[in-house]
Amino acid sequence: MTSTKDRILETSLVLFNRQGERNVTTNHIADALGISPGNLYYHFRNKGTIVAALFDRYQHQLLALLEAPQGPLSWKEKVHYLEGLLASMWQYRFFHRDLSHFLQADPALASQYRQFVETVLVRGTVIYEELRTSGILALDDEQLQALMVNTWVMMSSWAAMIYGLRPDAAADEGLDERLMRHGVYQIICLEEPFLQGETRAHLAEMKARYRASSNTTELLLGHAIGSSSAAC
Amino acid sequence: MTSTKDRILETSLVLFNRQGERNVTTNHIADALGISPGNLYYHFRNKGTIVAALFDRYQHQLLALLEAPQGPLSWKEKVHYLEGLLASMWQYRFFHRDLSHFLQADPALASQYRQFVETVLVRGTVIYEELRTSGILALDDEQLQALMVNTWVMMSSWAAMIYGLRPDAAADEGLDERLMRHGVYQIICLEEPFLQGETRAHLAEMKARYRASSNTTELLLGHAIGSSSAAC
Repeated sequence: MTSTKDRILETSLVLFNRQGERNVTTNHIADALGISPGNLYYHFRNKGTIVAALFDRYQHQLLALLEAPQGPLSWKEKVHYLEGLLASMWQYRFFHRDLSHFLQADPALASQYRQFVETVLVRGTVIYEELRTSGILALDDEQLQALMVNTWVMMSSWAAMIYGLRPDAAADEGLDERLMRHGVYQIICLEEPFLQGETRAHLAEMKARYRASSNTTELLLGHAIGSSSAAC
Repeated sequence: MTSTKDRILETSLVLFNRQGERNVTTNHIADALGISPGNLYYHFRNKGTIVAALFDRYQHQLLALLEAPQGPLSWKEKVHYLEGLLASMWQYRFFHRDLSHFLQADPALASQYRQFVETVLVRGTVIYEELRTSGILALDDEQLQALMVNTWVMMSSWAAMIYGLRPDAAADEGLDERLMRHGVYQIICLEEPFLQGETRAHLAEMKARYRASSNTTELLLGHAIGSSSAAC
């Protein structure tokens, strides 16, 4: 049976993702669960502690994905990693949309976040090195490092970018998910020049799996280019 | 002679960049200029209108850089564009650090921002096409589009990423600038696989010009990897 504490976290996550953390109060969360505000406060003394507990879950999920690989990697594990990245980005999108806000509001969270990013970059580098050893990527050490950092910028910034450009996605979960999937397409494009072997043979298939539109600019803006008065 | 209005904008920009827009009040700005709050309000009715006016300046500066090129491009124009990107990122860093906040706080600004991004992507695409025609980049249409979007994510997200990971840079303008220059290095790395001809011959020189550290992870975290307790 799910504990009250877990139910509070799960409901908060749904509400934060759908409505934005700023628009959700602890009373909204208690209402949605059919529990009293007092019962909620017994488990979490304020909304900040709920955000911190959700960050902890996000962190564990992503770091579990990035455990050092056992043995050589094939293009199928490559897809496994991409699916895992997407799941993290999507399930905890409220966090990435408002990352600067959360880091400024809670110094303890900011400090944990920095340690988390360090671990992500260290583990991500190990995985990219294994992809190179396995013959999936061909690149030198400097290129590998730059690819790792560019992938992390995409992973951690894409949701906020979407949120700023497509406010209509807030009320359309299907659209929101397609936009987020497209972030994984952009990550594949970062890796594309370095792909070789059987993974290169599967490149078109991998791109098609995540690409939400053949015109990314129109996707990001929500209309055909030139239909806005500011296009010229 | 500089008008009071211009002086207010210039001083606000310096204070926002150094202290963060949230920590600067209109009284601080008036004090720094030696004018009365009433005089400031005569020109700008609140801090939001100052932010909007600074966004307007930022927008004009970046769009002027991205005017359609006249004739074929050489690697020297490539450096010109990189310098222009860096200048925009650096001079208006307060805006990128807190972009989500500004877009949420001011719907009119958010709407202008979306039109601005459309124009940036349209003009940026024209420049990348000209770089291809001039023999500097070798890529197909899909790769060109992905490169344009990835470059914009880097350009618009790097300052916020730095701000979240290196709070010590807020009190060290030299460090802050080196971190921002490194964002241009990351943009060069995005383009690297597609560079050819004389620009490829100048690649090492261009990278050295912007790279702030040979270990980006350590640069982003402010310490040697493994020296933090969370590294493993």
